[in-house]
Amino acid sequence: MNATPYQQLENRMARLNALNEATEVLYWDMAAMMPSGGGEARAEQLAALNAVTHGMMTAADLPDLLDAAEADTSLGSWQQANLAEIRHRWIKATALNEGLVEALTKASAACEAKWRDARPAADFKSILPQLSDLLDLVVEAGEAKAEKLGLSLHDALLDDFEPGGRTADIDTVFDDLSSFLPDFTQQVLDHQASQPPIQIPEGPFPIDKQRELGKRLMDVVGFDFGHGRLDVSLHPFCGGVPDDVRITTRYDETDFTSSLMGVLHETGHAMYEMGLPKEWRGQPVGQSLGMSTHESQSLLIEMQVCRSEAFLQFAAPIMRDTFGGSGPAWEPDNLLRLYTRVEPGFIRVDADEVTYPSHIILRYRLEKAILSGDLALADLPGAWNDGMKELLGIVPPSDREGGLQDVHWYDGAWGYFPTYTLGAMTAAQLYDAARRGDSNIETSIATGDFGPLMGWLRSNVHGKGRSVGPSQILVEATGRALDPQVFKTHLSGRYLN
Amino acid sequence: MNATPYQQLENRMARLNALNEATEVLYWDMAAMMPSGGGEARAEQLAALNAVTHGMMTAADLPDLLDAAEADTSLGSWQQANLAEIRHRWIKATALNEGLVEALTKASAACEAKWRDARPAADFKSILPQLSDLLDLVVEAGEAKAEKLGLSLHDALLDDFEPGGRTADIDTVFDDLSSFLPDFTQQVLDHQASQPPIQIPEGPFPIDKQRELGKRLMDVVGFDFGHGRLDVSLHPFCGGVPDDVRITTRYDETDFTSSLMGVLHETGHAMYEMGLPKEWRGQPVGQSLGMSTHESQSLLIEMQVCRSEAFLQFAAPIMRDTFGGSGPAWEPDNLLRLYTRVEPGFIRVDADEVTYPSHIILRYRLEKAILSGDLALADLPGAWNDGMKELLGIVPPSDREGGLQDVHWYDGAWGYFPTYTLGAMTAAQLYDAARRGDSNIETSIATGDFGPLMGWLRSNVHGKGRSVGPSQILVEATGRALDPQVFKTHLSGRYLN
Repeated sequence: MNATPYQQLENRMARLNALNEATEVLYWDMAAMMPSGGGEARAEQLAALNAVTHGMMTAADLPDLLDAAEADTSLGSWQQANLAEIRHRWIKATALNEGLVEALTKASAACEAKWRDARPAADFKSILPQLSDLLDLVVEAGEAKAEKLGLSLHDALLDDFEPGGRTADIDTVFDDLSSFLPDFTQQVLDHQASQPPIQIPEGPFPIDKQRELGKRLMDVVGFDFGHGRLDVSLHPFCGGVPDDVRITTRYDETDFTSSLMGVLHETGHAMYEMGLPKEWRGQPVGQSLGMSTHESQSLLIEMQVCRSEAFLQFAAPIMRDTFGGSGPAWEPDNLLRLYTRVEPGFIRVDADEVTYPSHIILRYRLEKAILSGDLALADLPGAWNDGMKELLGIVPPSDREGGLQDVHWYDGAWGYFPTYTLGAMTAAQLYDAARRGDSNIETSIATGDFGPLMGWLRSNVHGKGRSVGPSQILVEATGRALDPQVFKTHLSGRYLN
Repeated sequence: MNATPYQQLENRMARLNALNEATEVLYWDMAAMMPSGGGEARAEQLAALNAVTHGMMTAADLPDLLDAAEADTSLGSWQQANLAEIRHRWIKATALNEGLVEALTKASAACEAKWRDARPAADFKSILPQLSDLLDLVVEAGEAKAEKLGLSLHDALLDDFEPGGRTADIDTVFDDLSSFLPDFTQQVLDHQASQPPIQIPEGPFPIDKQRELGKRLMDVVGFDFGHGRLDVSLHPFCGGVPDDVRITTRYDETDFTSSLMGVLHETGHAMYEMGLPKEWRGQPVGQSLGMSTHESQSLLIEMQVCRSEAFLQFAAPIMRDTFGGSGPAWEPDNLLRLYTRVEPGFIRVDADEVTYPSHIILRYRLEKAILSGDLALADLPGAWNDGMKELLGIVPPSDREGGLQDVHWYDGAWGYFPTYTLGAMTAAQLYDAARRGDSNIETSIATGDFGPLMGWLRSNVHGKGRSVGPSQILVEATGRALDPQVFKTHLSGRYLN
């Protein structure tokens, strides 16, 4: 029997996925293993793979296959969702002509390279020409996609990172948060000031011991080392493929706490990938959702669980014994206060759970103003500083600690930022629902048993792949759409008690 | 200006090469990094890459491009060699139909899987059906290639491993060797028996110290760690790509000598890859030649150089100091005798330089007899034992130490074996010519300076890529074709003095 059009699409997607997986492994290798002299050859390898997969998604016979498959009335709901996802990807792959894709790649590389000099020099003006060129192309590409998808420019850019994400929805929740955070942050700071000082565990903390501790707690969370690894890279990330997840960290011998929490964060990402539905491996519908859902899984493990009293009661003695420590610095209560310390600062990636959303809201508002034409690129630094003053009450000493600090805009990722805070709110809402649904979840964590939590996450998030979108996941798992109140209640409960 | 047909071919080959390089990195990762659970996904990735590259080599418009490029009278000699190589690959890629390729892949996997049980059980009979099926397909494929290439069956099989290799030439040199080796080996054994006993350095030898020593001596040979790595895998190999060479070893804490010499062997392979002509990166003509030339480079470094008195004078104190050793076991003369000990045994991969060729000649003769129909597969074990008796004077206790010991035949690599000994003879002839050409080469090695040797190898071997074949390399570098006398002189000089 000949394969149906739908089956033919599945076969192509499986092959395409295998090639994308090869790309993922090569990226991991590049960050974690590759000697510097391998860079040029690796770029050729990645470009060749990209050309092949792009060619497959823009094949001349794909539109007919899609039309024929969409006329097939025998498809089940997962198959339909798979087909819709393939159509969506086809639309995006064919929206841009080759010249635009090439111009974007070049402009992005040029701007990112310039940024590597401009940031340490705190010299925003020097990068303005490259950033302006890049943004023009980002907008051109975004408008091409917007037209094909029937979306606004900003929503089309969002869609690359957050399927179904809409600025109208984000505005609502971010406005809610931004009216809450400034006063709340001040209350937290006052509350913290009334507490006894935090004791810092004293090192050095040998790297092999840190690795041992990280792997032990990864195992506690449920990471399967038969299907993954922990290595070192300059910028920690979760890479690899669902059956072979590669997470990385970096170690500081004077402070184990930051690397350890980073490892647990990446483990949250990894558990999502490992928990995707096995029966849909290799198909678009079997893959993880957008960035906010992914970030919700890393933040659920890191912020909701591993920085909680329940987990630290369990983990503090393990940390202490790993390093042969003793004294009050290693008490769970002290480590909890260390791991939930709030302090407004200039740098997003160093921010705590309470001040982080303000960094994101600032970037989101600026992106929106620039994309709508309300803010000129040249005025970005000033608008940045005004926003920092309003949201966090501090003004960076230079653009190095201001609008030049993150690479995202400078390598073309416009629309990415809001997913961090959407993820943080989603994490709070999911963990709240999980604990309501199974009171055993939190008590188990206090004994180092993540089984009940992972069972809940597999059923309610991981195992759904892309069969439904981010908001539907939330509605099905928690009974409602994204509700900032849950996040605010979490913050109040953790930081004012 | 439009690209000429030849330029279009170069562009396609560059892309194809980048995809093949991706495959190489994935193979290295599979052996050195991948958790066991990643195997299924990795097989899909490799199969997808293979399908893409096979599709590129069998593209419908390639014959016309080849014809047009071959009519181009403006091509230089390297371009002509490149084009000839592309034509050769196209002939081989199109010689087999898809059904045969698939059947071969399956039969090879089935036979290899069966071999993993049959070998420890010493049960040749149990694998005979799979081996017979596989051999039928190997012969069918070989005959298809033979017809297209105008070669005999055995020569067509050889061609996959040894470009231009012919059984008629191999017969001549192997007959010469096999008439020399049995008596010579007995003389060496008698000579060794008259020497004082060898002292074995006492361990344990910590793995991190072994790694440090290996990397130090790799650096001495000239390995560039900006373009390569040393890692661990079950079966040591040299993988990666010319600008990013990945070699592996395995460590034994009770004996550093074997791993160290293995590292130096793989470093010889690596230096060949690293020394290929940079201006022809990504083109067929810029790649390494067949297995005998590759093995000549590893054996030149390992056997000719690193097991020599000159090198061990330099390296013995470094080995001793790395492990904090002392006493007569660490004297250069003792280590030289340890590293040149001769002892007939059943297992090829454990064999020394003197007895190794007999293992190869045995396999080559059996392959030849089976392919010509003079020997039935079922009679292989008996013929093996007869050959061992004749060539090495010993008979294995079971097929486990006999005809089942190597995977090659059982995964379809018929025609591969002779390249080991062709490589050993080539190594001897090249090193002999190098020293005659530059008397500074050997004295420099005694001081840890591989510069003069590497300079000679880059000019005479590495830098030639595939612009000429293995025999032409030898003729240009040494003034004559492969001459077993040089190898015999080397053996006599080393083992009877």
